[in-house]
Order: sequence, then structure tokens, then C-alpha cells
Amino acid sequence: MDRRELIKLGTGAVFSGLAASGRAAAPSGPSRQVERWGLFEVEAHGSSADNPFVDVVFGARFTQGHRTVDVPGFYDGDGIYRVRFSPDAEGSWSYETTSSAGELAGKTGSFDCLPPQPGNRGPVGTAHSFHFQHADGTPYFPFGTTCYSYGFVDEQLARETLENLKTAGFNKVRMCLLPKPLGKLQPVAMPFEPLSISPAAGENSPNDGSKSKVRFDLTRFNPAYFQHVERCIQDLQAANIQADLILFHPYDAWGFKSMGQEADDRYLRYAVARLSAYRNVWWSIANEYDLVKTKSMRDWDRFFRIVETADPYSRLRSIHHSRVMYDYAKPWCTHASLQAYDFEKSAERRAAWNKPIIYDEIQYEGNIARRWGNLSPEEMTWRFWRAIVYGVYATHGETYMSTDGNPVWSDAGRLHGTSPARIAFLHKLLERTGTTGLMAADNPYYLNAGNPGQLYLWYFDYHCPAEYDFPLPPKVRFKATLIDPWSMTLSPVAGTFSGKSKISLPGKPYRAVLFEKV
Amino acid sequence: MDRRELIKLGTGAVFSGLAASGRAAAPSGPSRQVERWGLFEVEAHGSSADNPFVDVVFGARFTQGHRTVDVPGFYDGDGIYRVRFSPDAEGSWSYETTSSAGELAGKTGSFDCLPPQPGNRGPVGTAHSFHFQHADGTPYFPFGTTCYSYGFVDEQLARETLENLKTAGFNKVRMCLLPKPLGKLQPVAMPFEPLSISPAAGENSPNDGSKSKVRFDLTRFNPAYFQHVERCIQDLQAANIQADLILFHPYDAWGFKSMGQEADDRYLRYAVARLSAYRNVWWSIANEYDLVKTKSMRDWDRFFRIVETADPYSRLRSIHHSRVMYDYAKPWCTHASLQAYDFEKSAERRAAWNKPIIYDEIQYEGNIARRWGNLSPEEMTWRFWRAIVYGVYATHGETYMSTDGNPVWSDAGRLHGTSPARIAFLHKLLERTGTTGLMAADNPYYLNAGNPGQLYLWYFDYHCPAEYDFPLPPKVRFKATLIDPWSMTLSPVAGTFSGKSKISLPGKPYRAVLFEKV
Repeated sequence: MDRRELIKLGTGAVFSGLAASGRAAAPSGPSRQVERWGLFEVEAHGSSADNPFVDVVFGARFTQGHRTVDVPGFYDGDGIYRVRFSPDAEGSWSYETTSSAGELAGKTGSFDCLPPQPGNRGPVGTAHSFHFQHADGTPYFPFGTTCYSYGFVDEQLARETLENLKTAGFNKVRMCLLPKPLGKLQPVAMPFEPLSISPAAGENSPNDGSKSKVRFDLTRFNPAYFQHVERCIQDLQAANIQADLILFHPYDAWGFKSMGQEADDRYLRYAVARLSAYRNVWWSIANEYDLVKTKSMRDWDRFFRIVETADPYSRLRSIHHSRVMYDYAKPWCTHASLQAYDFEKSAERRAAWNKPIIYDEIQYEGNIARRWGNLSPEEMTWRFWRAIVYGVYATHGETYMSTDGNPVWSDAGRLHGTSPARIAFLHKLLERTGTTGLMAADNPYYLNAGNPGQLYLWYFDYHCPAEYDFPLPPKVRFKATLIDPWSMTLSPVAGTFSGKSKISLPGKPYRAVLFEKV
Repeated sequence: MDRRELIKLGTGAVFSGLAASGRAAAPSGPSRQVERWGLFEVEAHGSSADNPFVDVVFGARFTQGHRTVDVPGFYDGDGIYRVRFSPDAEGSWSYETTSSAGELAGKTGSFDCLPPQPGNRGPVGTAHSFHFQHADGTPYFPFGTTCYSYGFVDEQLARETLENLKTAGFNKVRMCLLPKPLGKLQPVAMPFEPLSISPAAGENSPNDGSKSKVRFDLTRFNPAYFQHVERCIQDLQAANIQADLILFHPYDAWGFKSMGQEADDRYLRYAVARLSAYRNVWWSIANEYDLVKTKSMRDWDRFFRIVETADPYSRLRSIHHSRVMYDYAKPWCTHASLQAYDFEKSAERRAAWNKPIIYDEIQYEGNIARRWGNLSPEEMTWRFWRAIVYGVYATHGETYMSTDGNPVWSDAGRLHGTSPARIAFLHKLLERTGTTGLMAADNPYYLNAGNPGQLYLWYFDYHCPAEYDFPLPPKVRFKATLIDPWSMTLSPVAGTFSGKSKISLPGKPYRAVLFEKV
């Protein structure tokens, strides 16, 4: 599937809904239809004079029956204004634009929202308190990875990244919206227009000691930068991969972590206006927020509220920490996004937050000298299994030393590790069981999670018992499958089991047993 | 070396030092010499009427120059009274017995204390706050194991146990002084005389639901039982293995955990009088003291004080817990004896207690169904390495399922596991470095311990770096050895190193690097 097809599938109809700047209105017909959870875009043409990014307010009100949805739009350069809408209900919708510029306001139109096409299961939301599912009810188990720079590396690296994501079977990727340094490589573009070449540090220059001498006009976004990111998001959507978009981060060479409150907030609103209609977008307010020393907790809370208010779809929202855990009980967090691997604290955290928990950084498979970046694939696999039997989720990352100057996987590019196949095996195992999410057993003798009376997944961790009396419930019969998570083998155990059931085990570490109701 | 030789080596001279009950005095000559830290025994013969265990007080005062040591004796049955003394200074000693029975008091004699024989390094004491050494200054690194029942299994099992201990290279063994149930086997004897066969539970019967119908006269010890234990202790001493003697434990089928204060205290004084002169004895007041529900913290503290007062040699003293950690800061504890493997808390514990720490139960290599008894050998090896680089010590145990009804290793018998060879490798590594104990680095980037400027042992745990910049001190040159703890290989790294030194590493988990000053 090439990119042109992906765009068509991913965004539904793209057309110019408004006559503006003397241009003709878009044609009607097939293009005035969009699938449910697809993307309907209204394009308007207006003035490019002065600074439309700050001077012009543009948006549209979408209406179906008595329901109205107000959607902020954005300026896309070259006199083009857009508003994007992702309808969540089939049937006829109408819209009317609003704008501070008279020529852009009051334009109306309508479109039909059709049933979703195959593969479109709608956006992911939280479900059953601690889990996730698509809007169509399909369970969603986050088995994601980390490619921070995927949104701003060159076409070839981006293509390679996407292919690797698809082959490995990951269904979420953590990616930064603002650029981060890439060693000898350069980001494909910058998110703001350059202001001038300054020989010395200026008010917009980085305060982190980096070498950038470019100053940026923080009031003028660079549409090309965001168009590039959008294509990446569309590619991910076509591959059924969630884009966990990181809005701020501390890895900055250009001053974007110290733009000031006005520019921060404008950037957020611009990002949300552009991107929230993509159904695979999640908002991660920041990566390692506590390492961004230029912002306070008040800023982070404000960012959450801005995103919450500006996003008509209430896409999933969280924030990722380094050492200082955010209070995920705050109402604008939809789930926790942890940097930790102390899964044994998950019950306590669930009780405190009552939300799904993704351990979004559990260190990286690899071999670099930094201690967070050199897990063996066995260790990474072990951490994923522990997460699942503690009733939570984990996110992969990889940092094998790069000898050619290209980024390591957790920026973008090539995947070398051997844990992803094991992670995909676990992912498929969960999918095949029909569960919508496993509940961890309370204080179990050996770790296990399941759905009472239906399904139990025991994971023996480092323990090597040669037999175990499984405390199954009585009056229900189960079939048992012995699992080797590393060899990726499923071995059915002869017979069926009910009540306390002794089963011989291999006496080897890191094995699992799945019980499914017959 | 057979048992007869061991006794000769282990106890020095054994002779009847007193004319008593009309018997002739012991011969003088070679038998009136004893090596330093050996065992000199005075045997006296008196009345066996009534109950000498409680009716007769017997002991001796040993004198060298202005120094006197009062040593409690004990009744050994058949009218024989003994007092055992282990001299810590060479030269001439004299003694005079004391007793509540006139016929046993006022007997005098003398002996020469000679230099220790080869292999006799004296008792082990604490050293350098957090470590241990023999009285002759030889460093002692506790690399022990667990054979709870070694002291009361039959000769064949005991011999097998000892051979396995020697082959495996362990230098300490945790063993119970009171018997514990052995499945289908019986202890060789009981520590008290049977009182009667009672069809129902009586005041001395176990209150733990076990089936024993024998009642014991808790005022009458069974000398044969203790003589058997003593032979085991002597065998261990001849093999340079410390006997970490557990005085109470909760695994009781005969009521010995609920004897009452008077009997408890009499038992302790008897045990100390019989055994403290063996230089390889350590006192472990209890195993899993907090599971002995019949005793309170006041009892445990009193037991410590009784042992401390009765033992003229101040042998090492600790107590082992299950869930409720004892306060090892109490002055009568010489070291901590933990059931835990959270070595990462060792710095905090050292700060609180200022004593050596032995993690005496870090679970067991094996394959039984109980979760404390089925570590892989790799996991056991890993735990030992972590202990060492956290500046503490660990103790091995093994519980592979027994199919012939014989006990598993942690009671006594056959050793099946493959971690002991790795533990011995680590032990030898420490010995070869010449250290007296490694100090853990404060908050290290990667775990390491050493002796500043002299020696550093890095352990990379689960990390797999392909290279690392070791932060060695400047102005000192070190040679480096790459270590594979599982394969037990030492690979010298070419060159010498000083200051920050980048060294290529295998990119595999659980590797170590040793730096030794050139």
C-alpha cells in the first residue's frame, strides 16, 4: 500500500469545502462522503497577509440532528485555512465555518458519514477501568514501542521505521512532535519559521548549551513540518498503529522547551487543531516532563487543560515522567504513562488512580553504555510478561549501538533486537483468548491474571517448579496450555482441569500456563 | 581423614583431668597440651543419683597469669561431668573446678597451649565493621549453605552431607540444634529423655497438631543426642566449615518450641556449656523466630543475653527472621542474619546497624512447588553476585524434589544443583584478590564494590553494555579481568588502565570486571 492509498483510506474525503479567495468550491459527489471515525476536512482560502497564525481565528461547527461539535481549525500556509473533523456517528452531517475574518466565516456544507471501512475500528479509549478498547468495542492491548524521531526523520528512514513497526507487530509508537537532535543527521524541517541567523544566543535560542544559532519566529509555524508529521500519522493509522504523540520533551537543541507560556499554549492549540481528527492520535503532554526545568507543575496542568478543551474527541491523554511521578489521579489524565518497571506496585497504583497503566518506558533492549539502554532480549521479554500478569501494559524500546551514524531504533530506523517477536507472541496470545484485559490476582502465590471463571494466565517468573497445584475454581472445566515465552511455543496439556489441579511443569524459569474455560 | 583423626585434630587433648568417684587421674604428657583455639576438656566423675542436670552446678576457672576465665560445665550422663575450654592464648594455663557437689569442686590441673596447627585459623569474628575474619587475621568470607538437619540425621546421610559440603566448598552451614521432622526418616535421637508413651496430648506434647505421642522429661537431656551433634561440629571444624547453630526453630513435632521459660533457658545454658568451646560455632538464636508463636520478643532478647553471658568466647550471635525483621542494632547481635534478597537496601541497613550483614536465606535453588524453593541455578548465582557488590554476604540453600524419600539438601544429604560451583568460583575470586571485604560503592552507576585505590569489582547485573567508561581513579594503574560468573572464566584484558577507561564488553548480561592495582 503506498502513501497515496493510505491518505485516501485514512482521511476519507479531502476537499475544498468553501469558496474562498475567489477559488471555486470543491466538487460534490463521492468526495462528500467519509467513513465513521475517518477525517473530513474543510479547506478555505483567505488572506495570507500579516500573520494568519495569530491574526485569524478559524473553525467550524458540525451538526447532526440536535448535536453540534465546535472544531477549531488552523492556518496551513499559502492562504489556506483548514478545519478537520472526525465524525463518530453515521448519517448526514452539516457544517458552518466560523472565523474572525469575515471572508472565512459562514460557509456551509454537508457530508454523509458512512460505516467504517474494514480495518477501521475507531479510536482507542479506556475500558473496564484498567484497559482499552476501540470505539467499535474491539479490545485493544497496547503493545507499543518507541521511535521518538519518526515524525521528523527523512523519507527513507521513516519508510524503514514504518516497515519495521509493521513487521514487528507493534500497535503503538511513542513519537515526539517537536524535533530532537539526531546526531549527525538533521530533522527534515523545523516546526517554526526561521527568524534570522544569529551569531550569539538570543531570546529564542536554546538555554541548554546546544550549538544552534538559528532563531525562530515562534508566532509562525512551518506548515511543511506538520504536513510531514501528518503523513507519518496517516501511515501509522493505515497500519493500525496508535501515534502516542509527545508534545513537549527535554531533548532540545533549538529552544523549543523554553518558548514561554504564550508560545507554548499557541503551539499546543495549533497541534491539537491539526492532529486531533486523526483517530489514532494519543496525547502525551511530555516525555520526562520533570527533566524540562523551564516549566512548572502549573504549566503541565495547564497544558492538559488546553488539550482537553481544544480536542473535540477527547483522545487519550497522559504525561510521562523521569523520576518524579505525575499525579495520574488528576481528572484530565485518561491513563498513567510510567517510566518504571516495578510492576509489583501496580495494584497500589490502580487503587490510587483507578485508570489503565502503561509502563511506557521499562528501559531498552540494546547494548549501549547507559544503564537504561542495554537490556538483554530475555530481560525485555520478562518485563512484558510481568506487566501482563500484574494487569498492566508495557512499551518496548531498543538502543543497540549504531555504527553508521544512523539513529538507534528508539529514535527511528532499524530494529535489531529479538524481544519484539516475543512481545508479539504475547500480544497474539492475549488476542486469541478473547479477553478484553486481564485482572491481576490479589496477592497471588505465583503471579497470575485472568478473568474469573473464564481464563487464567499464570506466569512463574524466575521460579522453576517441577509441579504445581493450580487453585482453579471448582465446577468449571479448563483446558491448559503450557507456554514457553522465549521459545514461543504453546503446548496443550492433556485432559481438562477443575478445582485444585496438579500439573507437571518443566522446572525451568520464565514459563507460563494458560487456562481457558472449555 | 576419618572421624577419629578429626576428633584428634579438632579438640586437641581430651583427658580426665580430675580424680573423681575413685577413678584414677588422667595421664600427663602429650595429652596435657592443646593448640591455640583448640579444645581442652576436663572430665570429672561424680554422682549420677537424682537429676545431675538440674541438681549439680559444675564448672572451672581457667587461669593464665592474671587472667581468669570462668567456664560453665555440663553433665554428660553416666556420672560424667565435663567442662570444655578453648584457650585463645599460648602458654601455660591452670584450672580449678567449681561445683555445688563437694566431690567435684576444687580439683586443679594445668596444660600448655601450643601454637595452632596448620589449618587452624581460630574462630571467626567480625572485622572492619561489615566483614569477618579469623582470629589469626585471615579474612573470612561467609559462603555458606543450609543443612538444617545435618546434626541429627543418620551416619550415612551425615557423611554424605559432609562430603558434599567439602566438595562444594561451602565454609558455613546453618544447622538446627533441636530436631525437625524428616518425612519418613527419624532423627537419630531426641535431645531429652522420654518420659512416657502418652495416648493423648500432654503438657509436653506439641501444640502444633503433629502426631508425636512421646512426652519428654525436659529436665533430663539426652547426652547421646548432643554427642552426636558434637561429632558433626567437629567434622565441620576439621573441614574449616563454620557451624551456624540454630537454637530454636518453628519446625517442631515434639513440643520443643513450647517448653516454657525454665526449660528454654536450661536448654540454652546446656547447649552453650557443651558447644561454645568448638571454635567453629556460631549462635543463631532461632530460625524464622517470628514464626515461633509461643515466644515473645522478650524471650528472644533474654535468650540472646543468656547466650552472651554463658559463652566465654563471645561466638558470633544473630537471629534469623521470616517476615518480621529483628532489630539487629541490639547490642547482643554481632551481625544480621536476614531472610531477604533485597540487597539494594543494604546501605540503609548498614547505616542502621553498623554490623556485617549475611542474607542467610535468599530462597533455594530447586524445583519444588513452594515459591521459596525453586530458583534456577542462574538466579541463585545472580543473587550471590549482587550480594557481594552490595558489600554483604549470602547463604545458599537447595530444594530439588526428592523421589526416594530422602531429605532435600537443605535438610541434609545429596546436593544436585549447579549454583554451588559458581558460588565457589566467586568465593575463590574474593580470596585471590587479597581483600578483607569489599565496600559497596555509594549510589553507583553500575553496581560495584571494592577497596578504594586497590581493587574494584564491577557487576553489570542484567545490563548488557558493549562498552563502558570505567571511572577508575587517576594516578593508579590497574589490570582488568573480564569475568563470566556462569561459565566461570577469567579473561585478562590487554593493557593497564587508569582514570576514565573505556573497555569493550561482551554485550551479554551478568558479566563482571575486576580491576586490581598493578
